[in-house]
Amino acid sequence: MNLIEYIESRRDEHLNELKEFLRIPSVSTKSEHKPDIERAAHWVAEKLRAAGLENVEITPTKMHPLVYGESLHAPGKPTVLFYGHYDVQPAEPLDLWTSPAFEPTVRDGKLFGRGTADDKGQVHIHIKALEALKNQTGKLPLNVKVMIEGEEEVGSVSLWDFVQRNRERLKADALVVSDTSMLAKGVPSITYGLRGLNYYQVEVAGPAQDLHSGVFGGAAPNPITILAEMIAKLHDRNFRVAIPGFYDDVTPLSRQERKALNSLPWKEKEFRKTVGAPALDGEKGFTIVERLWTRPTLELNGIWGGYLGEGAKTVIPAKAYAKFSTRLVPNQDPAKIAKLVERHIRQLLPKSVTCNFQVLSTGKPWVAPYTHPIFQTAIHALESGFGKKAVFIREGGSIPFVTQMHDTFKVPCVLLGFGLPDENAHAPDEHIALENYFGGIKAVALFYQQLAAQ
Amino acid sequence: MNLIEYIESRRDEHLNELKEFLRIPSVSTKSEHKPDIERAAHWVAEKLRAAGLENVEITPTKMHPLVYGESLHAPGKPTVLFYGHYDVQPAEPLDLWTSPAFEPTVRDGKLFGRGTADDKGQVHIHIKALEALKNQTGKLPLNVKVMIEGEEEVGSVSLWDFVQRNRERLKADALVVSDTSMLAKGVPSITYGLRGLNYYQVEVAGPAQDLHSGVFGGAAPNPITILAEMIAKLHDRNFRVAIPGFYDDVTPLSRQERKALNSLPWKEKEFRKTVGAPALDGEKGFTIVERLWTRPTLELNGIWGGYLGEGAKTVIPAKAYAKFSTRLVPNQDPAKIAKLVERHIRQLLPKSVTCNFQVLSTGKPWVAPYTHPIFQTAIHALESGFGKKAVFIREGGSIPFVTQMHDTFKVPCVLLGFGLPDENAHAPDEHIALENYFGGIKAVALFYQQLAAQ
Repeated sequence: MNLIEYIESRRDEHLNELKEFLRIPSVSTKSEHKPDIERAAHWVAEKLRAAGLENVEITPTKMHPLVYGESLHAPGKPTVLFYGHYDVQPAEPLDLWTSPAFEPTVRDGKLFGRGTADDKGQVHIHIKALEALKNQTGKLPLNVKVMIEGEEEVGSVSLWDFVQRNRERLKADALVVSDTSMLAKGVPSITYGLRGLNYYQVEVAGPAQDLHSGVFGGAAPNPITILAEMIAKLHDRNFRVAIPGFYDDVTPLSRQERKALNSLPWKEKEFRKTVGAPALDGEKGFTIVERLWTRPTLELNGIWGGYLGEGAKTVIPAKAYAKFSTRLVPNQDPAKIAKLVERHIRQLLPKSVTCNFQVLSTGKPWVAPYTHPIFQTAIHALESGFGKKAVFIREGGSIPFVTQMHDTFKVPCVLLGFGLPDENAHAPDEHIALENYFGGIKAVALFYQQLAAQ
Repeated sequence: MNLIEYIESRRDEHLNELKEFLRIPSVSTKSEHKPDIERAAHWVAEKLRAAGLENVEITPTKMHPLVYGESLHAPGKPTVLFYGHYDVQPAEPLDLWTSPAFEPTVRDGKLFGRGTADDKGQVHIHIKALEALKNQTGKLPLNVKVMIEGEEEVGSVSLWDFVQRNRERLKADALVVSDTSMLAKGVPSITYGLRGLNYYQVEVAGPAQDLHSGVFGGAAPNPITILAEMIAKLHDRNFRVAIPGFYDDVTPLSRQERKALNSLPWKEKEFRKTVGAPALDGEKGFTIVERLWTRPTLELNGIWGGYLGEGAKTVIPAKAYAKFSTRLVPNQDPAKIAKLVERHIRQLLPKSVTCNFQVLSTGKPWVAPYTHPIFQTAIHALESGFGKKAVFIREGGSIPFVTQMHDTFKVPCVLLGFGLPDENAHAPDEHIALENYFGGIKAVALFYQQLAAQ
């Protein structure tokens, strides 16, 4: 029985174990899930040991623990550092899930549940690939370091500190990450570019307390109206971000890269169907693929103020709030952008309100030098594992850590994505295609095997 | 012991009984308070009987019951119809109350609790005034009809139907209402103008489901951004409502009335202090008093969409919502305004979203012909009851019912207000000044006594 046959023979076992992982509601943004986070960390540690990793440690941080393990018994062979995260997004709104978020369910060739695609399913692919390699030959054929954090969905607040403190220990020839998507079903992909992410919260405060809108309306400042008017000034008519200096440092795409990206088998029709809106919006002068992968954006992520309940309440609220984020592209600097955003917002607000502006997190954009040979090894492994042509793509999402690692270790970062763009990563009914989960285990096992053979 | 001495002797008894009334959380907007609403209706009925009213009935409606009672044993004397409401606004946000909303507490000469000013305290003033008159002379000296509803805070949805069905029975020489405020502490006031109120809710729907703002941001329509941009277009730079036709039917103030209103002992400094914002906003070209009482407005009352929880969630929500209202002045027609608002909002929204527009309630504006003699009787009673000069004022709030009654019965409506503008009618720490509560009982008793003596 060869490696691939071995992996094929374990399908049910792998899937059942993944479901176990998914049942742990390890939501990192909510403090009430702290015990679940701990449980998920222990679960990961146990599975790493089963895959042949040693020195497996659960390292406490200021927030949620990080799981690390390694196997260094292949002298002269390459060393890879695999990174993933075991924390997940909140599941709300719960009533929009077809089956409960933390009760994984297979329907129509897909596994549904919070974390299936982002990122528990993809982390599990690597653990099972390593386990298969170990079980086939008795030991892992290359040197492996695995680092699984629990704070990715809250901006990886402790990760960087851990990396700095373990710089020597973490040294590797390449970083491998699976937290991205394939271009489309049947198109295995390597992501060579990610957008950075700054996340902000703004509080606009007017009256000292909630006021009756009949008695005070027409003279008291209304924080909701003022917040809305401020938001309306953040984009111009062409849907460009209207913050002075926002685009100053953006590196323009080369004609060649632009052509390559627009030639990909990317299906606009399917994208439109996934979005499901009457029409798309976006920055004038760029194709949809360019808007999604190569252009910076400003998106509102939450807004609230006043009366949100049933029926009518004639109130002018004391305060109104918004959460929003900017996606950044090479060569924008997150700290500089955060300053530009804050300055502009403060300038936009009238003197009848005060403003509390918070930067909740920042993260750099990244592009890979994908001419390095490891990318060729990876793309061939993908093609063998899936039996399909594989492609190089970029992605609109953010893994700030990738940039930081690349900046620190100066080694290639290989992003093997096994999700799909319509798998609702941060929304109800998140899922992963079973063919990508099973194909992923084969491709990753082959990738590690071929790296060891070079 | 004359009427006034009698009322003075009952202060503690009156206050304790009012507290009993305030402890019933009769919140009409929330269906879970249905049993409290029923309890409040029964409480009112019992007290009306104690005040000498007969045929006291609790009439069920489609929503919350209406309490009616009458005393018609004064042939040849005037008949007054008193209207009030026993329902209250929601108490949220609960954590902003110094003492719990439904545990009435006296501090610093003020009684705190939801409903103290709006409107339980004022209803109780009338019940106790009538009881005093009855107890002084053995019977009520004029004909009285009392109608207390439980749906005022939800737009009086059943009241009008009740009035139409009981048109003959409700006939009176004057309507008396106490649900307004005095101009200021120590300035007893009769309100002769109210703004009308239309209340709306709008849902802006874009993507078929919540989307990841990294994967979809920059190309998918964002309902929060689009809602904010729509709201920003509802006012112009001078804070005029930018809905075409909105001001078309507004009757301009006469020079005389404008002068009278601006000469009132209205304290801008105190108003600014109550609002407590860094500065005021409002329509250019009008004084603050004019903006509050005589100009139509559009106010946002609630907004929500996306992630409202702790921390960050990188989501583009499927939908975003706003609640807002227009205050109307003579001669604006609520139905016409609702149509103008809906048409404008639909025109403002881009084709990338759909819109669900609801009119939750409508209500006409009103001004009284205060030259009628009953207003002179009322103002003298106020001056005697309080020992202060009384004034004629307008108010920015809305009692749609007053207009409907005036239109139907063509009799004067006398609005005796015992609240104060800074008593947080719809906000935490609602209260009533004890001197106004006790002075109100005396003034109302004198008003009814003097009407009977004419």
